[in-house]
Order: sequence, then structure tokens, then C-alpha cells
Amino acid sequence: MNSPTITASAEELDWLTTTLTGQIPLGAAMGLSIQSLDHAGIVLAAPLGPNINDKGTAFGGALVSLMILAGWSLARLSLRRAGVEADLVIGRCETRFLRPVDEAFRARCAWPQPAAIDTFFRVSKARGKARIDLAPEIESGGVVAASLQARYAALAST
Amino acid sequence: MNSPTITASAEELDWLTTTLTGQIPLGAAMGLSIQSLDHAGIVLAAPLGPNINDKGTAFGGALVSLMILAGWSLARLSLRRAGVEADLVIGRCETRFLRPVDEAFRARCAWPQPAAIDTFFRVSKARGKARIDLAPEIESGGVVAASLQARYAALAST
Repeated sequence: MNSPTITASAEELDWLTTTLTGQIPLGAAMGLSIQSLDHAGIVLAAPLGPNINDKGTAFGGALVSLMILAGWSLARLSLRRAGVEADLVIGRCETRFLRPVDEAFRARCAWPQPAAIDTFFRVSKARGKARIDLAPEIESGGVVAASLQARYAALAST
Repeated sequence: MNSPTITASAEELDWLTTTLTGQIPLGAAMGLSIQSLDHAGIVLAAPLGPNINDKGTAFGGALVSLMILAGWSLARLSLRRAGVEADLVIGRCETRFLRPVDEAFRARCAWPQPAAIDTFFRVSKARGKARIDLAPEIESGGVVAASLQARYAALAST
């Protein structure tokens, strides 16, 4: 079994890109791309244009969406690398919008601690259901512009 | 001054539609439409297709986005009807995803109590800044599928 924080393979990047922008049309509409996926975590990027609001800054819903997807990607990849067949859904989240975003932005999320990932997929395998918390942030212009505290749930595929 | 809960005029519906789908491209990408805007509040509707995820259900970010816009619309209309020149931004929100959404969905939001709206725009006028809380919900297939506790801030235009 691969380490949960191994650098992504080309196959994995292809799979994740297809999922985030092919299977989730709103990801494509946002102009989402994977900027990096490595031992530190994931960075998803989006341009301002398709995500703008009436004030000329990024729409709050776009910021939340990119953060939800950044956290989802790491939890989903953890399951995939561990060979756990499960759907991964978001259960709840709390968002803080700290500053207006007036240029391209990124959602950055760090891998959870290895022990948390290990528990996550062991419980998934044993009980068919497990939860994991992740804390992605929006960065734009060198500052943190929004943050998310998100709880995801893995549900065994039926 | 109009009552803050008066039924919408055609001009107002045009203005809001243009704002939600013309000035916010993600609203158009979601297929957002205004289903109703009356004394009870607002109902925004969206089809499943453009908002689907990898599991064939509605993407959580789309549910949050529609709820954010439903609450935003009522607070923004309150300011507009009161003649208060202010930007309206979301400051924070907490989301609960209760059930998967596998068909078209709606975000429903009730007007705040008249006293809360009154305070909101009086404080906006006096201090150039005011906050208001709203609690939109996603309804699909006759049940509540997600809920939002959202805090918006009005910031005097500069």
C-alpha cells in the first residue's frame, strides 16, 4: 500500500482532473485546475473571471466550492490509495470569509496526520462508514482570504 | 418607503435575475432561476444536471452557493428597497448537508423579522456597516436536504 502522502502519479492526476472537472461540471465552469498535489497536500487554482460576483470580487459560493473540493480530493485519494471502495461526501462545514478576493485564487489543503488517515480508512473498511476533518483555505494575493472547517464521511459503496 | 416584505415588482425581478445570473456567472452556470419572491421570502431553483457530482447527486458547493444567494437576495433587496447604498457580502456561514439530492432542488429563505431588517438598514445608514443573519435551506423531493446559517454584512459604498 502506498503512503497516504506520496507524490501523485500521472494516472492519479488524470483521474482527479477528470473527476473534478468532468464528473463535476461546476468545477469546469469555475475553470478549476490542479496546481499541485504532493507530500504537502493539494492546491487547486481558479481564475477570477468565471467566479466573479456583482462587486467584481470572487463569489463566496465559488470560494466554498473550491475549498470543499480541495479537502474532498485528499480524503478521496486517501481511500483510493488504500483500496477502500467508498463514496466520499461532505457532511458539514463552517466557512469564514476573511477578505475580498480580487484576482485569481487557490484553495490549499494539507494532508491530515498519518494517524488520522490510517484510522479513517481502517474504520471505513471495518464499519462501512468513517469521518475525517479537513481545513482547506483560500489564498489570493499572498494572504488567506477564506477558511473552511469541513467534515467528510466515507460511505461504503453498495 | 416600501415594506421590506412587499411582493416583488417586475423591475425588481429583472434586476435580481440580472444580478444573480448576469453579474455572477456561476449563477448562470448553475442554471439558477427565481421561482418566487413574495411576502414569504424567496425561492431560487436549479436543475440537477449542471450541478451534479461524481456520485450523480448535487455537488455540495452548488447547494451552498444556491443557499448563499437566496439569503443574499433578501438582505440585498431589503437595502435596495430602503434606498441604502451599500455592498452586501457574506461574512461567515455554517452548512449542514442532511441528505443526498438526486433531482432538481430549490433554496428557500424566509424574510427576517421586520424589526431585524429595520435595525439592519438603520445601522447601515448610521454606521456604514451592519450585519444580518439568515437561514436558507435546500429543499428537494419534498424534504430539507441542507441548511445554512449565514451572516451577511452591509458595507457602505465608497
